[in-house]
Amino acid sequence: MTNAKWIWYPGDFELWLHARTMMRRDERGMYIPPIWKIDSCHPNVKFRRVVELERGETVTIAANGRFNVMVNGHYRYDAKTSFELETGRHEIVVSIMNDQSLPTIYVAGETVRSDDTWSASYQNNKWSDAAAWIFDRPEESPVAYRLATERISPIRSADTDPDARLLDFGRQTFGYVELRGLEGRGRVRVFYGESEEEALSETFCETFDLADIDGETEYTFSLGRAFRFLRVRTDPGLSVRDIGALYEYLPLEYRGSFRGSDALLNEIWDVSIRTLHLNAREFFLDGIKRDRWVWSGDAYQSFLMNYYSFFDDAVCRRTLIALRGNDPVEIHLNTILDYTFYWILSLEDYVLYTNDTDFIAMMYPKIVSLMEFCLNRTNENGMIVGVPGEDWVFVDWAEMGKDGELCVEQILLCRSLEIVGGFARRFGDEDAAARYGRLAAELKENILVTFWDEEQGGLVHSRVDGELNHHMTKYANLFAVLFGYLSPERTETVKREVLKNDRVQPITTPYMRFHELACLCEIGEQEHVREEMLAYWGGMLKLGATSFWEEYDPSAEGAKHYEMYDRPFGKSLCHAWGASPIYLLGKYYLGVRPTAPGYEAYVVEPNLGGLEWLEGSVPTPRGTVDVYADPSTIRVRPAQVGTGRLRFRSVLPPSASQGTVKQIGEDLFELVLESPDVAYEVRYTAVRRDS
Amino acid sequence: MTNAKWIWYPGDFELWLHARTMMRRDERGMYIPPIWKIDSCHPNVKFRRVVELERGETVTIAANGRFNVMVNGHYRYDAKTSFELETGRHEIVVSIMNDQSLPTIYVAGETVRSDDTWSASYQNNKWSDAAAWIFDRPEESPVAYRLATERISPIRSADTDPDARLLDFGRQTFGYVELRGLEGRGRVRVFYGESEEEALSETFCETFDLADIDGETEYTFSLGRAFRFLRVRTDPGLSVRDIGALYEYLPLEYRGSFRGSDALLNEIWDVSIRTLHLNAREFFLDGIKRDRWVWSGDAYQSFLMNYYSFFDDAVCRRTLIALRGNDPVEIHLNTILDYTFYWILSLEDYVLYTNDTDFIAMMYPKIVSLMEFCLNRTNENGMIVGVPGEDWVFVDWAEMGKDGELCVEQILLCRSLEIVGGFARRFGDEDAAARYGRLAAELKENILVTFWDEEQGGLVHSRVDGELNHHMTKYANLFAVLFGYLSPERTETVKREVLKNDRVQPITTPYMRFHELACLCEIGEQEHVREEMLAYWGGMLKLGATSFWEEYDPSAEGAKHYEMYDRPFGKSLCHAWGASPIYLLGKYYLGVRPTAPGYEAYVVEPNLGGLEWLEGSVPTPRGTVDVYADPSTIRVRPAQVGTGRLRFRSVLPPSASQGTVKQIGEDLFELVLESPDVAYEVRYTAVRRDS
Repeated sequence: MTNAKWIWYPGDFELWLHARTMMRRDERGMYIPPIWKIDSCHPNVKFRRVVELERGETVTIAANGRFNVMVNGHYRYDAKTSFELETGRHEIVVSIMNDQSLPTIYVAGETVRSDDTWSASYQNNKWSDAAAWIFDRPEESPVAYRLATERISPIRSADTDPDARLLDFGRQTFGYVELRGLEGRGRVRVFYGESEEEALSETFCETFDLADIDGETEYTFSLGRAFRFLRVRTDPGLSVRDIGALYEYLPLEYRGSFRGSDALLNEIWDVSIRTLHLNAREFFLDGIKRDRWVWSGDAYQSFLMNYYSFFDDAVCRRTLIALRGNDPVEIHLNTILDYTFYWILSLEDYVLYTNDTDFIAMMYPKIVSLMEFCLNRTNENGMIVGVPGEDWVFVDWAEMGKDGELCVEQILLCRSLEIVGGFARRFGDEDAAARYGRLAAELKENILVTFWDEEQGGLVHSRVDGELNHHMTKYANLFAVLFGYLSPERTETVKREVLKNDRVQPITTPYMRFHELACLCEIGEQEHVREEMLAYWGGMLKLGATSFWEEYDPSAEGAKHYEMYDRPFGKSLCHAWGASPIYLLGKYYLGVRPTAPGYEAYVVEPNLGGLEWLEGSVPTPRGTVDVYADPSTIRVRPAQVGTGRLRFRSVLPPSASQGTVKQIGEDLFELVLESPDVAYEVRYTAVRRDS
Repeated sequence: MTNAKWIWYPGDFELWLHARTMMRRDERGMYIPPIWKIDSCHPNVKFRRVVELERGETVTIAANGRFNVMVNGHYRYDAKTSFELETGRHEIVVSIMNDQSLPTIYVAGETVRSDDTWSASYQNNKWSDAAAWIFDRPEESPVAYRLATERISPIRSADTDPDARLLDFGRQTFGYVELRGLEGRGRVRVFYGESEEEALSETFCETFDLADIDGETEYTFSLGRAFRFLRVRTDPGLSVRDIGALYEYLPLEYRGSFRGSDALLNEIWDVSIRTLHLNAREFFLDGIKRDRWVWSGDAYQSFLMNYYSFFDDAVCRRTLIALRGNDPVEIHLNTILDYTFYWILSLEDYVLYTNDTDFIAMMYPKIVSLMEFCLNRTNENGMIVGVPGEDWVFVDWAEMGKDGELCVEQILLCRSLEIVGGFARRFGDEDAAARYGRLAAELKENILVTFWDEEQGGLVHSRVDGELNHHMTKYANLFAVLFGYLSPERTETVKREVLKNDRVQPITTPYMRFHELACLCEIGEQEHVREEMLAYWGGMLKLGATSFWEEYDPSAEGAKHYEMYDRPFGKSLCHAWGASPIYLLGKYYLGVRPTAPGYEAYVVEPNLGGLEWLEGSVPTPRGTVDVYADPSTIRVRPAQVGTGRLRFRSVLPPSASQGTVKQIGEDLFELVLESPDVAYEVRYTAVRRDS
C-alpha cells in the first residue's frame, strides 16, 4: 500500500507552476512577462476511483478549492473533511473547482488513497489518468511547493563607501537576501551582480531590490535573484549587522561524473554541472539572472546535459509540459519555428533515455495537434516557411537569410515527422503513422534533391521564391549529419568542405556550438572538440567565471565581457546552454549512450580525445555506467539495466577479464556487458592518431 | 474626449467573472461546480495604442497584475504609477500578466486614455480591439465588480420556537442576510426558503448558512442566497435584535411594459418581469436558488424576454461569451447538443434586436470553430447524432427516443447553418458562406424528405439505424413552423394534426412551452395562448407565487408543488424560463418585432387575443414603441429609430390621424410610421373571431 498523494489533472500542476514562475522576471525593478501565450491549469476538474472495501473505513479529504464528494451517484453532504464508507464496492467521484489556483485533492483512508490510479477529467466528458508527484501529506498541498533553501554567507565583505558595502559569495548563486541585526529606520537597497562590476554599478546592474525598514530587526526579500556579488546600501540611521542569503535550489542527485588527465577540463566539467544545476529549477530556465523563461531550444540542450548528470526526469516532464501549454496551438513554441521542432526532438530523447512512454502517451494528443499546426503551415513543396508577423525564424544569432524555405528548418521538420510517426505507430494510430512516415520520406528526398550543392559539397542555406540561395551555412549540414540523413560519402564531403572549412561562416554562439561540437564528435573529432572546450570554456574560467555564460568572445576585454543587448550587464553569466561540456564529455568521451529506450541496450565507446586517461559515471534509469579508459586499459561497470556493448579500437588483439571480445571490423572490437554485477576490464592497444 | 476605461482582452472579463460566479452554487452546505468545462481569462496579455501628442503630458497607469510599459520600442523603467510622454507620435505597449486574476489596465493622461480604441493580444501574435465596459475610475478595477445592493427588511416575523424565528420578506428575493444587534456568543443558523415550508424544514431546505458569533454585534453572511422566508435559529446565550438582508441585483431599466383589460394577466406580466430581473445578474441564470448556472437553452429564452423588457445588451453579451468559453471546442455547450444550436440562434436574435455586429465580428472565429465541431459530428446523411457518453441529447424533459437522428436536432442544425452562413457573408468570408449555405440547403431538403409523414400530417420524431420511428412529437414541427420551413399547406396540416391535436403527446415543461406558445402565436392562436397563460401562470399566482417556477403541475397539492429531483424543495420557485409571458405579450399581443437589425425596420401588429384593450411599450435601441389597441382604436408612438409598419385587420375601411393607410390584403391594412415624433391613431373595426 502506497501513501495517498495529492492528485490533479495531468499537466495542470506544471502549467499552474509555470504561470506562477513567469510572474518573477524583473529588470531594474520592472516586470517583464513572457512574450508568448501562457496557459494555466483547468479550473473545473473531477476525479474518480472505484474501490472494493472488505470492511468499512473513514476517509479523510483535503482540497485546494471548493469540492464535493459523490459516492455511487449520491452526493455526500457530510463529506467536509472526512466521510465514512461501508463494506463493498463504491464509485467515488470528487468534483472540485478553483478559479484562482490549482484544483487538487488528497483522499486518504485505510485502503482508499488518491494517487495516479485515479481518473481525472476537466469536465470535457473524457477521462485520463490523474497525475501525482511528491506531495503525500494532507497539510502540504502542491500549491505550497517551493524549491529547497539553505543559508549561505558571503566569503568577503568590504565597505565601498560610508553607506554601502560589497559582498562576495565566492561563486554564482541564486537566492533571497536576508538582513539580520537591523537597527534603526530607513531604506536599504540591494544591487545584485553576477560580476563585481555589475554589483558596483547601481545605475546599470540588471536587478536590484529595496526595502523600507521601520523597526524590524530581520528582513528577507521576497523574490529570489541571481548573484555572486551584492552591494548593499543603507540610509544613514539604519545599520545592518549581518547580510546573508537563502540559496534556493532544486534538490538533485549528482549521478554523473567526469575526471580526466587535464585539470582544466575537469574544472570545466565541475563549473558546467554547477551552471546546469542553477538553471534546473521548477523548469529548465535559459538563465537565472535575466530571462528566467522556459525556451524550447535551450531546454532541448539542458535535457541532454541532464541525462549525463542528474538524470532527473521530473524536471524534463515539467519543462516539456510548460513549453507545450494547452490546445489550441496558435503560435510556435516560444513563437519560434525551430523551437517547435526541438520540443519534438526532446520527446524522442526523453523516451530513449528514460523509457517513460506513459508520459508520451499522455502528451500524444498535444504532439499530434502541434504537428498538424506545422503541417498547416507547409507549402506546395511540403516545406515549412515562417509566417511573416507571426513566426520567428531563429536558427541562430548570426547573419543569415530568414526568408523562404530554410534547409535547416526542413531537416528539423523532417526529423520531427519521423519521430511523431514513430509515436503514432507505438500507440496504434496506424493511419497517422503511415501519413507522417510518408510525409517524412517525401520531404527527406525533396530536401536532398533541392538543397544539395555538388560543387560546394554540402546543403545550401535556403530557397526563396523558387530560387536557390547558394549561401553555404553549417546549420543544415550539421543536423543532416546528426540525423544520419547523408550517405557516408556525402558525410565525408560535408565534414571537409563545410564543417571543418574555415571559409564557411563560423558558428559563434554557444547555443549552436552545442550542436556543432556534438556533430564533430559524431564524426570522430574528439581531439579537436577537446581543444575547443579548453579554449572556449577554459577561456571563461581564466576570466574568473564560476558559472558559464550566455556568450563568450575571447577578443573582448574587461567588463566588456558582460555587455549584451546594448546593456553593460545584459549578458547572463549563468546560462544553461553554457554547460554543454557535460553532454559532450559524457556521450562522446566516456562514450555512453542508449540505443534502445531506457538503456535496455546501450553502447560504451570511450574516446580519450587526446587525454591520457579519463573516468566517470553516466546515469541510467537504474544505476550508472562507470567507465575508465587509458590507451591500454578500459574498465566498465555496467548499469543495473539493459545490455551494454563496449566498442573500442585496438591495433593489437585485446583481452578481457570477463566475457568474450569479438572483432567486428578492422581494428574494431566489441565486448558484450552481460552482467551488471561485474567490473569488466579490457587490455588493448589504442590506435594512435596521426596528428 | 471620453473618460479613460479599464481595458482587457475581449471576453476575458466575462470568462473571469463567470468562473468566479460558478464558485457559488451550494446545496445544503455542499458546493457543486458546473458539470462542464469552464474556461477562464488569458493570464498574459498586452495592449497597444499609437498616439499623437500636440504637447507633452503625464500619463497615470493602474493595473491588476504585474506590468510594464514600452514606448516606441523602449522599456519605461520609470512607469510605475505614471510616466511622461513628450510631444509627438508614440506607440505605447503595456504588457501585463496575472496568474490568478484578470489582467486589466487603466491608462489616463490629458489625451492618452485607455478604451476600446486600443488593441489587445493574448501574446498569440494577433491583435484584436481591446474591450472595456463601465469601469472608468482608476481605483475601481473590474475585479472589484459587484452587483448593486439595497437594504431590505422582512414584512413579518414570528417566533417558531424559543430559539428560532421565521421571517417573511413578502416576496421572492436574493441577498446577503444581515444580523444586527447581536448580543452574546454562540452559533446562528439561517435556513432559507423560497416557500415557508422550505424555511421551516431545517432538514430539507436547499440552502442554509451558519456563523459562530464571538462578540461581534453585526454580522453579514458572505454568500448571497435566494429566499422569501428565513428561519433563523440561535444558540441559547446568543440574541439578535434585527435581521435584514442586502438585496443584490443588476441595475436595470424597466423599459418594456404591458397592461390590458385582464388584471390577472397584468399580474402575470409583473411577476414575470420580477422573475426575469432576479435571474438577470452577472449572467442570465437558470434559477437563483439552486443551479445558478448559465445554460444556453434557458438563456436563449431569457434573451428574448430581455428584448421586451430591459433591452440590456450587456448581460446578453456576458452570457453569450460565458457560454461559449474558449477554443478548442471539446464538448457541446453545457454538454447538450441542442444547447449549442440555441447559442447560435441567440446570436441571430442579438443582431436582429440590437444591430451590434461588432460583437458578432468579435465572436466570429469562435462561431466558426463551434460550427466545425458540429459538422465533425455529422454522419453520411449530413445529420448530427449525439456521441454516446459525450453528448447530452436533451430536447425536453419528456418521454422520447434520444437515439439516432432526431428530426428536431437536424432542424436546429439547419437553422444554425443558415445563420452562420449569413454571418460569414456579412464578414466577407465567402467560401464559408457558400459552404454553410449549401450544407443548410441540402440538409433542409433531406429533413423534409426524410421525416415528413403524409399520413400523420407532420414531421416524425427520429430515424434510428436507417429506420424511421413513426412516433409523432411536437418538437420538430413547432421549430419547422417557427423557422418557416414548411409550406403554408403543410403549416396548416401541422397546426391541425400535430400542434392542436390532443392525441399527440403534450408538452408539459415551461421550458418547451415557451417555444410551443410562441409557435401557436405565430399561427394566430393568441386567444388560446392567453387562456393557457391565465391557467398556467395564473395557477401559480393563485398558489401565492411571487415569482414563476421551474415547473408547475396544476394537479399537485400543498407542499408537493415544491418537490423536484427527488427532493422536497428541489424545485426552483424563481426560474428565468418561467417569465416567458414577457416575450409572448410583447411580441405577439403588443405585436412589435424588428424585421431588420436594430429595428431599422419593424412591424407593429397588435393582437387583442380576446382582451378588451391592451397597451404597453416595447424597447428598441433608441426609444420605445408604445402601443394601445382596442377593437376600434390603435395608437402607436414609434421608436426613435427605423421605420415601423403598423399592420391590422379591419372589416370596414379604417382611417388614420397621420399618414396613409394602405390596403395590402383582404381585410389587411398597413400604415407606415414615418415620423418618430408623432402619435399615430387609427380608427378601425376589428375582425370578430368566430369562437
